[in-house]
Amino acid sequence: MQYFPPALENLVEHFAKLPGIGRKTAQRLAFFLLSLPEEEAASFANAILGAKKSISCCPVCQNFTEGEGPCSICSSPKRDNTLICVVADPKDVVAFERSREYDGLYHVLHGVISPMNHVGPDDLHIKSLVERVASGTVQEVIMATNPDTEGEATAMYLSRLLKPFSVKVSRLAYGIPVGSHLEYADDATLMRALEGRREIL
Amino acid sequence: MQYFPPALENLVEHFAKLPGIGRKTAQRLAFFLLSLPEEEAASFANAILGAKKSISCCPVCQNFTEGEGPCSICSSPKRDNTLICVVADPKDVVAFERSREYDGLYHVLHGVISPMNHVGPDDLHIKSLVERVASGTVQEVIMATNPDTEGEATAMYLSRLLKPFSVKVSRLAYGIPVGSHLEYADDATLMRALEGRREIL
Repeated sequence: MQYFPPALENLVEHFAKLPGIGRKTAQRLAFFLLSLPEEEAASFANAILGAKKSISCCPVCQNFTEGEGPCSICSSPKRDNTLICVVADPKDVVAFERSREYDGLYHVLHGVISPMNHVGPDDLHIKSLVERVASGTVQEVIMATNPDTEGEATAMYLSRLLKPFSVKVSRLAYGIPVGSHLEYADDATLMRALEGRREIL
Repeated sequence: MQYFPPALENLVEHFAKLPGIGRKTAQRLAFFLLSLPEEEAASFANAILGAKKSISCCPVCQNFTEGEGPCSICSSPKRDNTLICVVADPKDVVAFERSREYDGLYHVLHGVISPMNHVGPDDLHIKSLVERVASGTVQEVIMATNPDTEGEATAMYLSRLLKPFSVKVSRLAYGIPVGSHLEYADDATLMRALEGRREIL
């Protein structure tokens, strides 16, 4: 049953297709857009078209970039090009950059191996990672996929794949998060934190 | 600090301006749109432009409508044109239509009187309501604004305004919602439910 004019219904349906947006929220967003001045609504539409048109994947690290050629991180002379941090998503790059501690390069897989969701190694940007490692300048590859089953499996798969190239392959440390409370830490995390304990010097 | 290419940052910012959408969700939605095929992203942008261009307010009831002239409800010969239900928002019309019990016309105020938010009677579609009532065919006006302070105040204001036209002005019944539990009903609602009790015949 449809109570809205077709153009409004169409907009509501488009919003409802977005992840985490239900029908009620989609309605609210559509009404909000209708209430905006003409030029602001047009600016929203153009932001979508513009992003879709000008954003592409960096040919080196596969992170999102604007324009042709390698992204600003890959082409920066200040970054350590012997170090590659392998992440699943562009938003993971943002998390690392925010910490301002990492000065190596990245490689974005755009997903993790997930047989349940029919994502195999060929659906990820793995071939280009192997080519980068094979080129010879890389000395260490840090696996920074999420610490869940699929992230672990992907990290294991990649580390086996990269072994023939005699590079160091490492994994992010497990342990208790900074600022958390021990009583709320789960068993697996506590066990890993014990295993990975370091001497206080 | 900006970690995204400008076009992506721009899209994220547009999403973050929507009501109830924070920066994290905006990022997620922007990434989702980037992952869509070109034509689906374009279809989203066109839905915004299309809705904004073709949706206008019905000159009679001020509800959203597509194209010129009165909306489908106002121009329907099956609706009782002696009855007007006054609501604050177009989504309230949807709620009434969904119930399939109401066969009169509507009038959408597009807001309620709210001095705190600098919304006065002149910012709402009140003049056109008075004109409709003054035209003479209307016999009853039902105030169906929300049962909160601002909705009540707006209903009171309108009922005073319409008194000179000798039409019946009514208000939706207060009481306990169907399917709810008495123990969770607040005092004000219970009091109103008692006041409005009806004889079982």
